[in-house]
Amino acid sequence: MIIEQVHVTPVAFRDPPLLNAAGVHEPWALRTIVEVVTDEGLSGLGETYGDLHHLGRIRECAKALIGLDVHASNTMYARISAIAGDTRTDLHGLTGAATKEKNVDRVFSPFEVACLDIRGKAAGVPVADLLGGKVRHAVPYSAYLFYKWAGHPGEEPDRFGAALDEAGIVAQARQLIEEYGFTSIKLKGGVFPPDQEIAAIRALHEAFPGMPLRLDPNAAWTVATSIRVGRELDGVLQYLEDPTGGIAGMAEVAEAVPMPLATNMCVVTPEHFPPAMASRAIGVLLLDHHYWGGLVRSSHIAAMCDAYGLNLSMHSNSHLGISLAAMTHLAAATPNLTFACDTHTPWQDGQDVVVPGALRFVDGAVPVPDGPGLGVELDRDALAIMNEQYEKCGIVARDDTSYMQRFDPSFSARRPRW
Amino acid sequence: MIIEQVHVTPVAFRDPPLLNAAGVHEPWALRTIVEVVTDEGLSGLGETYGDLHHLGRIRECAKALIGLDVHASNTMYARISAIAGDTRTDLHGLTGAATKEKNVDRVFSPFEVACLDIRGKAAGVPVADLLGGKVRHAVPYSAYLFYKWAGHPGEEPDRFGAALDEAGIVAQARQLIEEYGFTSIKLKGGVFPPDQEIAAIRALHEAFPGMPLRLDPNAAWTVATSIRVGRELDGVLQYLEDPTGGIAGMAEVAEAVPMPLATNMCVVTPEHFPPAMASRAIGVLLLDHHYWGGLVRSSHIAAMCDAYGLNLSMHSNSHLGISLAAMTHLAAATPNLTFACDTHTPWQDGQDVVVPGALRFVDGAVPVPDGPGLGVELDRDALAIMNEQYEKCGIVARDDTSYMQRFDPSFSARRPRW
Ligand SMILES: [Mg+2]
Ligand SMILES: [Mg+2]
Repeated sequence: MIIEQVHVTPVAFRDPPLLNAAGVHEPWALRTIVEVVTDEGLSGLGETYGDLHHLGRIRECAKALIGLDVHASNTMYARISAIAGDTRTDLHGLTGAATKEKNVDRVFSPFEVACLDIRGKAAGVPVADLLGGKVRHAVPYSAYLFYKWAGHPGEEPDRFGAALDEAGIVAQARQLIEEYGFTSIKLKGGVFPPDQEIAAIRALHEAFPGMPLRLDPNAAWTVATSIRVGRELDGVLQYLEDPTGGIAGMAEVAEAVPMPLATNMCVVTPEHFPPAMASRAIGVLLLDHHYWGGLVRSSHIAAMCDAYGLNLSMHSNSHLGISLAAMTHLAAATPNLTFACDTHTPWQDGQDVVVPGALRFVDGAVPVPDGPGLGVELDRDALAIMNEQYEKCGIVARDDTSYMQRFDPSFSARRPRW
Repeated sequence: MIIEQVHVTPVAFRDPPLLNAAGVHEPWALRTIVEVVTDEGLSGLGETYGDLHHLGRIRECAKALIGLDVHASNTMYARISAIAGDTRTDLHGLTGAATKEKNVDRVFSPFEVACLDIRGKAAGVPVADLLGGKVRHAVPYSAYLFYKWAGHPGEEPDRFGAALDEAGIVAQARQLIEEYGFTSIKLKGGVFPPDQEIAAIRALHEAFPGMPLRLDPNAAWTVATSIRVGRELDGVLQYLEDPTGGIAGMAEVAEAVPMPLATNMCVVTPEHFPPAMASRAIGVLLLDHHYWGGLVRSSHIAAMCDAYGLNLSMHSNSHLGISLAAMTHLAAATPNLTFACDTHTPWQDGQDVVVPGALRFVDGAVPVPDGPGLGVELDRDALAIMNEQYEKCGIVARDDTSYMQRFDPSFSARRPRW
């Protein structure tokens, strides 16, 4: 099955004003949709970041893959390495430093997913079956809570409303759990001084006794602050995610706090693995096939985590249904991915490029789509509308910091902040 | 594609009297041939050890796989774990300690290979394509030299003749290189006092200037001896394989000798990886899908080696063509497997259970079979003959030591010996 065409389409969809250590989500979130078409007429889908430099690399690499067989992953990776291996980046700073390897892995990912989609369709099996087969029929996700404004400045409040204190966070959790059935909770922190976020976690702990809780300040804290927060939340947090920046800092914190540390910031390429393991910096790795080089490479990383006794969860950026499907297939086929995964799906609030129906939440978990491949189908009308939104929205790269500074000129994304 | 039948056939084939630290190869080498047949009529092949306890576990596990889809690797592995996870073993001591994990990986492997063979056939692609696709069209193997007797005691000399000193080893190398075109050489050591083996390596270095050379005494030496030999062979050896036993001992040697150490003895399950990496015990890992849990798990290990900057080669026990095909597909699809692989193929001297033609050596390398799946076909007549040989030969588990002691009652396989 030879790759004959690759369609690359940037899209934009509405995103609520979600607060984080880098600033606040802009009104539009960007993604790039990749469709690979073979000579035999089968096509497959991939989804990746929408930022301009990345989009440029995706477009350039798409051309270089024409004529390759959909199984030729190693050759695709080598070709992409030769093209995308610069360190120019538009990473927004919430997933760690940019490296050549990471750029290559980020560009390779949507093409690999699309080729697996095709291979699954050709074999009549779900993508999970190409990754070792399902070990669970549905993949649990966590309620991903954000401090947020009621709406974007100058607009009506969105249906989620404001969440700027403990009460707001608990109400948001109630709403998401009611709508999706989640059984784990993650709070995006790094927004308010640590004591306020500790109070929010305590309020969640009281409102949802026994529910696994996580807090992720995206490295907004010093080592000392991280240790203090970690100790105060003993017995309350399942894990503490990226309290501080860098492997060395994380290792210092890990030694002093009672709960495991998780990361999607200090271990984001295979090269980070050895120093992180040597210094025992983390106990949980958040997989993310979007920057770990696709699904098969993510399964290599999962095997490495197994050898090193690390637990696994999954990281998420704002995404659409192609990514949710890919994440679900990967998680379903990864035996040691035993913690509920992160997803931004509730915040996309029904907007999607895939035909509705294949993806749904049941008791906080997404049943693995049954159809062959990813099991999702492109909604071409929705794609056209979202592409038009992209063209009109005026945003070409995520920049939470500048958007925040429009409303609070004194805002600084400097970290550590506390 | 559902597994409907699994045929398990032990076979025996003639093996020359090859010497090693554990003793000498018996006149018959054993293997177990696994054939998996699906409801749609496709069948796939696997090959594994022939020792009795292992054969028993293979037979027991074969039954447990009936009814599973050929993609359900994770479920197969879990079922086999539940059955084969004891530590009873008939490992002959040349591939490290027995562990529960290693037993499971050893039993899982031939079934996994057979299922990949089926999946490749169904998709019309070679198994290499299911592992990321070929990065090389042919896989280089090394000339695997052994000290040996002229023939088994009481029998005519075999066509290779004796090799019991430098001249014999150089002559053997010439013969194998002439017949196969090998461009790397490995000498199995641990047979004679180290100075004799050093002399043999020096003689090879003189006779084949510039050719990569390796020496593998199977942990027959103390740390001090290993360091002395390693230093004496500076600039002569590409790598030194398992000079001494255990990760700690290997680490001591590695720090003191100029060349990298390789192993198929001290790192043989994922659990060995962290301590070996922490102590920098090895620079080269010898992959072997027969005990690393099949081809996909071997590719996980290869990825881990890449992250840790380890080089890769491949280990071999006496084997037939199904294994050679599987090794070749794996090596062809593993970008960082850049050292020539080991194989015992020349010592099997044409005996095989696969139809001739699909596997051949060109300039010391095996071109990846083009056909779908493994690209080899079972020769049912040959299988029947070899199974009859198994029934008649009287050997049920490899035991180089007892066989040696029949001729030299004072022989001890105790290691370290020097
Ligand atoms: Mg995070
Ligand atoms: Mg060896």
